[in-house]
Amino acid sequence: MIFNVMTLFPESFNDFLSTSIIGRSIKNDIIKVNLYNIRDYSLDKNKRVDDYVYGGGKGMLISVEPIYRCYKDILKDRTIKTIYLTPKGSILNNKRVKELASYNELIILCGHYEGIDERVLDLIEPEEISIGDFVLTGGELASMVLIDSVSRFIDGVLSNSESSEIESFNDDLLEYPQYTRPIEYMGLKVPDVLTSGNHQKIRDWRLQKSIEITKEKRPDLYKKFLTNKNMEV
Amino acid sequence: MIFNVMTLFPESFNDFLSTSIIGRSIKNDIIKVNLYNIRDYSLDKNKRVDDYVYGGGKGMLISVEPIYRCYKDILKDRTIKTIYLTPKGSILNNKRVKELASYNELIILCGHYEGIDERVLDLIEPEEISIGDFVLTGGELASMVLIDSVSRFIDGVLSNSESSEIESFNDDLLEYPQYTRPIEYMGLKVPDVLTSGNHQKIRDWRLQKSIEITKEKRPDLYKKFLTNKNMEV
Repeated sequence: MIFNVMTLFPESFNDFLSTSIIGRSIKNDIIKVNLYNIRDYSLDKNKRVDDYVYGGGKGMLISVEPIYRCYKDILKDRTIKTIYLTPKGSILNNKRVKELASYNELIILCGHYEGIDERVLDLIEPEEISIGDFVLTGGELASMVLIDSVSRFIDGVLSNSESSEIESFNDDLLEYPQYTRPIEYMGLKVPDVLTSGNHQKIRDWRLQKSIEITKEKRPDLYKKFLTNKNMEV
Repeated sequence: MIFNVMTLFPESFNDFLSTSIIGRSIKNDIIKVNLYNIRDYSLDKNKRVDDYVYGGGKGMLISVEPIYRCYKDILKDRTIKTIYLTPKGSILNNKRVKELASYNELIILCGHYEGIDERVLDLIEPEEISIGDFVLTGGELASMVLIDSVSRFIDGVLSNSESSEIESFNDDLLEYPQYTRPIEYMGLKVPDVLTSGNHQKIRDWRLQKSIEITKEKRPDLYKKFLTNKNMEV
């Protein structure tokens, strides 16, 4: 899988691309992240990429030209699924993450400052995605979140021992509580069932806990779970 | 504002803490981010911090002891609001972000691998927050998202020209389209009203567009907007 990222801050990706599972997957040629600096595509003699907002208002916008020129340079006459990370987009979730993992190549556009000239969207027609109902300084962190979550569904990214299959949101249930050694810490003990060796009992306990936690913390997910199981609310 | 971050990957924060608005705010002593490496608090001779899951299952969990020792070391007998970033938490939104910006100091716990021993939550009782319904490799990116979004509401972080007041989600409406020079690009023109100089007309157009976009893209937010305005759906 190739991620092509258009950004004004390519240097902010260094740590992300060299740490933990993403770092290892890049080293192993399972994923590739190409960073394109939008500034390199400015035709302005000072490489300026932003300008004031028509009609007044605080902040600066990224101009249409450098973004569009960068985009065309990545495409090289191909067609590539393109994503623009913006608070106006549809909210990212695990289902969409899985779907995006089926592409061989993606282009991700990161806004910054007050945003981008609206005509970029008219020309590129990207899928607009938001990672949540809050405002970030730029699309850079959001694109790392996207790349990280999508990569976890790509074959070879997770080792056998890291399988994403049992993690949160599969089956619309939150994960059950987990424990590791020591068996007692500050008077708090690991639940007996987990050390019983009875695998059926452990499975039952975990499912029961998952249901309880989801019902309490995320009634919206719990409702979805019941609907999918054709049970009554 | 001081952010105390407990993590196994402090090095993954370098770029984030030196780039753009966060970099500037740290330099100007408006915010401070203290990174604590959980591994430094392991009593194991090999500084091991993770172990297998009781009851079986893939992956490794972070043990309770190093996290709890790290936490106590940060506290030093004070009381500090603590946040654990986990897919099981309540979903972060702009309202909660604003509220968190009112604290003088926060502790943020980043999980990694399969998660943390449940007894950490019994001992620390953190607020559990999720940035969205997807799975990340660790809490590191999520904590950067939290720090970035919260910081934008702290006095002095944004310059006058970057004010967050008119950004997405204030008034439950998405932002109107914005344009900058040139006035025409590839046949696409800036809407006439924005160059009319008529400020009342510009305000009306922007509100109208915000309403249209929110209604189309986020009916859930639009409903909230109508409710808050005491209008009929």
